[in-house]
Amino acid sequence: MKLHKLLTAFCFSALVASSSYAFDRNALVLMTDFGTSDGAVSAMRGVAFGVDPALNVSDLTHDIPDYDIWLGAYRLYQTANYWPKGTVFVNVVDPGVGTQRKSVVLKTTAGRYFVGPDNGLFTLIAERDGVAELREIDENVNRLAGSAESYTFHGRDVYAFVGARLASGAITFEQVGPVLPSASVVKLAYQKAVRNGDVIRGIVPVLDVKYGNVWTNIPKALFEELKIGVHDPVQVRFLHKGKQVAKVVAPFEHTFGGVAKGKPLVYLNSLLEVAVAISQGKLADQYKIESGVDWEVEISKAPVK
Amino acid sequence: MKLHKLLTAFCFSALVASSSYAFDRNALVLMTDFGTSDGAVSAMRGVAFGVDPALNVSDLTHDIPDYDIWLGAYRLYQTANYWPKGTVFVNVVDPGVGTQRKSVVLKTTAGRYFVGPDNGLFTLIAERDGVAELREIDENVNRLAGSAESYTFHGRDVYAFVGARLASGAITFEQVGPVLPSASVVKLAYQKAVRNGDVIRGIVPVLDVKYGNVWTNIPKALFEELKIGVHDPVQVRFLHKGKQVAKVVAPFEHTFGGVAKGKPLVYLNSLLEVAVAISQGKLADQYKIESGVDWEVEISKAPVK
Amino acid sequence: MKLHKLLTAFCFSALVASSSYAFDRNALVLMTDFGTSDGAVSAMRGVAFGVDPALNVSDLTHDIPDYDIWLGAYRLYQTANYWPKGTVFVNVVDPGVGTQRKSVVLKTTAGRYFVGPDNGLFTLIAERDGVAELREIDENVNRLAGSAESYTFHGRDVYAFVGARLASGAITFEQVGPVLPSASVVKLAYQKAVRNGDVIRGIVPVLDVKYGNVWTNIPKALFEELKIGVHDPVQVRFLHKGKQVAKVVAPFEHTFGGVAKGKPLVYLNSLLEVAVAISQGKLADQYKIESGVDWEVEISKAPVK
Repeated sequence: MKLHKLLTAFCFSALVASSSYAFDRNALVLMTDFGTSDGAVSAMRGVAFGVDPALNVSDLTHDIPDYDIWLGAYRLYQTANYWPKGTVFVNVVDPGVGTQRKSVVLKTTAGRYFVGPDNGLFTLIAERDGVAELREIDENVNRLAGSAESYTFHGRDVYAFVGARLASGAITFEQVGPVLPSASVVKLAYQKAVRNGDVIRGIVPVLDVKYGNVWTNIPKALFEELKIGVHDPVQVRFLHKGKQVAKVVAPFEHTFGGVAKGKPLVYLNSLLEVAVAISQGKLADQYKIESGVDWEVEISKAPVK
Repeated sequence: MKLHKLLTAFCFSALVASSSYAFDRNALVLMTDFGTSDGAVSAMRGVAFGVDPALNVSDLTHDIPDYDIWLGAYRLYQTANYWPKGTVFVNVVDPGVGTQRKSVVLKTTAGRYFVGPDNGLFTLIAERDGVAELREIDENVNRLAGSAESYTFHGRDVYAFVGARLASGAITFEQVGPVLPSASVVKLAYQKAVRNGDVIRGIVPVLDVKYGNVWTNIPKALFEELKIGVHDPVQVRFLHKGKQVAKVVAPFEHTFGGVAKGKPLVYLNSLLEVAVAISQGKLADQYKIESGVDWEVEISKAPVK
Repeated sequence: MKLHKLLTAFCFSALVASSSYAFDRNALVLMTDFGTSDGAVSAMRGVAFGVDPALNVSDLTHDIPDYDIWLGAYRLYQTANYWPKGTVFVNVVDPGVGTQRKSVVLKTTAGRYFVGPDNGLFTLIAERDGVAELREIDENVNRLAGSAESYTFHGRDVYAFVGARLASGAITFEQVGPVLPSASVVKLAYQKAVRNGDVIRGIVPVLDVKYGNVWTNIPKALFEELKIGVHDPVQVRFLHKGKQVAKVVAPFEHTFGGVAKGKPLVYLNSLLEVAVAISQGKLADQYKIESGVDWEVEISKAPVK
């Protein structure tokens, strides 16, 4: 009996170890402006597989418009929180590749890792989640073997390689390279969401392009300070470089079904920020609204008809 | 010796258990009309990874045209059978999100699971494979923690979460929620394939867009009732809302190489249903044929020249 | 003590076996001209999952233009080396599906496997990496059960099935089918990179479409024979079917930052081959340069201004 128990205990340990096998890797998530029509993303995946065949590698998106650092920053902001602590994001939107911009790994207070060029890509993540520590990648040790002659593909030779090593546990965060001051992370400038009396000002950080919906950076809590009830009318002004492009008055609704097909509504999007849409239509197209740091928005209560 | 055998037996069990490790998860397959340009699909994957990092998650497609429930239904019909029993499909084509349409999981007689809105998406799967059981998702227990304030992203907060829990074995099918009558599953209406004397009537459920080929819902067995031999001419009429758009006469062939480049042919597609194409050309473009429930087709034997 | 050691040794073996679990599968990489808007690629993945749920399956690209064998050959050439030895590539660009072209698996000297139609897709891989052995797929044994009636989807029923079995270790390379002469592999004809005095001649095998950069097949070592230093001017002539389309004079640079925005440069791309670009611009669009075997290029030293 004693032997039997001993055996059971030992082999149970073996089983537990084996069952938790896959759980000791963190996820690796890739975001680039490469598209998926050539082999660039697959080469990055090949490098990651070479580091650790058991890694879970997936794509955030590869459709960031060329060199659009702002939109890359927004996609990270929009998506990162749905991945567990420890997830490693490898990010390549890098107009300055080959110049003096630093290559870094940023660890947030929430415990996620962001690998890529320090060019503003981490603006929104750093602001919302906080920087636990920022490290510069030491390319002398953290670079795919045999890649030193290639000048242009940091995404594959450095970022995918370092990201995979970090996610797999092959290196610790400390082994990435030397610490940089957390406050030194490069940030893009833009209008934060602020209330001034009855009006909240912010920007259109992004369009929900597929559906033509217009998002803002105004969070639920700030919006609630306007005391607008469900079905109450809201006035939304859109300005490009300070000049009004459109003014929409629409009810605040909890669901798209709250208005008739073709009618506008104001709602809270999946990030719990204010958004404006036309039910089964495309508001952005109809009013020619685009997005970015120079597209501002002003929101206020409209008189109830 | 006895000890040795005992040890071998125990540790062999451990090995078998460890080797079969990945096999106790079912696959999770995602289909949406979100596209992959923003972070929405990645957020769904993040939720699934949070449920179980060892899950095999892949994409059926995210290019369903906005709100096109029929095409979503067809893509499931076209693809599901190539995945093993137990596979869980998470489906988000959901114009009625936030309204009173039910959220369900349908289990087919073949043992596959389909998660999503009960809005017609499961029409063709239910008809072909049979409904073993239909359950409504109980969102009180099957919803991502902390997501109750978000009104618009069922795909991530409910469907991806429930699908991942089901595929990983974290919940049983019974734990999804209460049973609904199998016959209550919402079905879209369309012309089934039927033979009336020498003519078979059906629809163009979909185009093979990339190649410009036109598919029908007429199965091999029904087509064979017309007694048309290989290389024999077939007449195909295409009608939109009852009005003829095109009439094509083309030989029935087993391969595209059976006709010269640029010539039409009738063949059995990869689902073993009748299809019409131009060899290395685009028949749908040339004859302006589209697809959907109001695009009908009539097939008959043509006189041999 | 002795028992304890014995137990430790046995169970340690179990642990090692379990830890190396995922490592005994090779990666499976898919490339097609199917796009990802329908369910075709997902059906291929379903077949692979049915063979082995633990396989790591990923996409090289599915955006090869219809039937463009040359570009498929180039994508393999561009990407394969970043995947480890043993990786299995399943390739479907197959205008001749259903005709007499052979279905093969090519093993390179570097130990990677390429599954697909023998129609020229493996031209560049065979030339660069060498053919260790070529085998014809015996479809009597290597074909998805129940698929014999389908005439048109070799990619799913044969190539994905064989590729998954090979990557998972379910069959050996020898079990694919009979050996063919290595030299019999079908190759496309094109202008190799050659130097003739002060001029190197080659082709534009591909565009880096997303960025509008123009690549050549001229390798670093050959280019260095021209003794062109960093920042020195290079003359590049582009010819379509022998007729000059454009002539560009631009400095040879190590980074895009080496020239002002909007200015052209010559550089070594991520394959260490000569390429021409406009910094943050689109050279191919501006000069109307396309790619393929009939787009030739001539490179020489330009007089220093």
